[in-house]
Amino acid sequence: MNVGYLGPEGTFSQLAAEKYIKTIYNEYCSLVPFAKIQDVLKAVANGEIDEGVVPFENSIEGTVNYTIDSLIFDVDLFIKNEIIIPICHNIMTRKECVGKRPKKIFSHPQSLAQCRKYIEKNYPDVETIQVLSNSEAAKIVKESTDEYFAISTNAAAKIYSLDIIESEIQDRSHNETRFFTVTKKDTRNIDGAKTSLVFSTLNKPGELYRALDILSIWDINLTKIESRPLKDHLGTYIFYIDLECDNVYDRLDALKMLERKTNFFKHLGTYDILK
Amino acid sequence: MNVGYLGPEGTFSQLAAEKYIKTIYNEYCSLVPFAKIQDVLKAVANGEIDEGVVPFENSIEGTVNYTIDSLIFDVDLFIKNEIIIPICHNIMTRKECVGKRPKKIFSHPQSLAQCRKYIEKNYPDVETIQVLSNSEAAKIVKESTDEYFAISTNAAAKIYSLDIIESEIQDRSHNETRFFTVTKKDTRNIDGAKTSLVFSTLNKPGELYRALDILSIWDINLTKIESRPLKDHLGTYIFYIDLECDNVYDRLDALKMLERKTNFFKHLGTYDILK
Repeated sequence: MNVGYLGPEGTFSQLAAEKYIKTIYNEYCSLVPFAKIQDVLKAVANGEIDEGVVPFENSIEGTVNYTIDSLIFDVDLFIKNEIIIPICHNIMTRKECVGKRPKKIFSHPQSLAQCRKYIEKNYPDVETIQVLSNSEAAKIVKESTDEYFAISTNAAAKIYSLDIIESEIQDRSHNETRFFTVTKKDTRNIDGAKTSLVFSTLNKPGELYRALDILSIWDINLTKIESRPLKDHLGTYIFYIDLECDNVYDRLDALKMLERKTNFFKHLGTYDILK
Repeated sequence: MNVGYLGPEGTFSQLAAEKYIKTIYNEYCSLVPFAKIQDVLKAVANGEIDEGVVPFENSIEGTVNYTIDSLIFDVDLFIKNEIIIPICHNIMTRKECVGKRPKKIFSHPQSLAQCRKYIEKNYPDVETIQVLSNSEAAKIVKESTDEYFAISTNAAAKIYSLDIIESEIQDRSHNETRFFTVTKKDTRNIDGAKTSLVFSTLNKPGELYRALDILSIWDINLTKIESRPLKDHLGTYIFYIDLECDNVYDRLDALKMLERKTNFFKHLGTYDILK
């Protein structure tokens, strides 16, 4: 059993993957780091690994566009579990740079976005550099001889022996990220707390309302709705929906009707939340 | 009359701002470049400039999170016009680097996202560096002595004398961006083709459906719906909506009802599309 995640070591994805295998598989499982989200998804699709753990949504910055678009357009994988991880961002540097002004700040684009107000307030003129992961940012700072700072995890600060200058620098103190585990195994017909799907409607007045009407008839609670561009013209969208439904038969009936009333429909899976 | 935009010279925002002042104000207007979207919005809010032009939504990558979140949470400005600009991305470098392998590729994060598939196919192992604008990327490449490439506009290639290696490298050939002009002047009660608003509902089953029901009763067409995180907890959202309504009285009645039925409501303005 192999589970892939967005590496290198020390990322939030690793924390999520560790929580997942500890709860579900215990020790009979090895973790495989990948350099990019798309590499994790491709490796699952190719059968190179059994399952992948990818970030999906953050409570401050919103949905991870790459993950949602890949699940819609690029791969045919199913969501198997949801894992929630609390996120704490720290700004760190090498011991000799503490107290100096940073020349550049390195981090993952989502982390930079989540600490936007802190950066604007404290380092308004410092260039921010987007790198592939928080751990990569810590590694760059460790290996440089310049006044470089990184926004990264506690785990990465330990791995790369960096000094944390300030902790909890994200724009809101309550910050958590939702990860999905994805698999090739069909999870659409199982009993599970949450269901995720995408659909598009004809571009006519009231079409979205009529689609939501179906869920309302079956008393199904919508916990998230998001529009993503269909990418061919401005103003054409695909809708991503999360819903909660305890009754598996009601859910399947409602989705069957929804599929009939929409011109594109993809059920991404039904799954439980890993506490 | 001063209109601010996301500079430096050669950005798509400049093209949008030029189209806007040419159509609306002719020559009695000067354009002022700013380094960041937030600087444009703050300058309008402070009265330093009269109006600002900011990117809002791209047909491939979706909504510009910074702009939408600032209009919701940070400033109280009104949308005055919508401007649509076709987007063409080019990869470029200095003459002596043509034919060489790039060490790094510089661009604005939205442009990197819009050319994701091209970069993955042609330069899968090259580091991409996020900078504040496409023009900034071209400037960095011009001033470096390294094998650096930029993804930027035709205008920037001319300003910085860079050679375009390949044109139209965005993931879809049809690519356009929607800009807003924003002002302190209230535009909520005017006659206009489009209306933008945000609201949040109680976190109960069917609340979003009941809000959309109001628009359906007045036969108002929804052209965009997007959820943004309320930023305090995962799963709490604010909804952004664009709607079309020819009848100004119907629109005002519908919005009055919507405001009564929601617990947060902000009408961002009513405006026309600049053709």
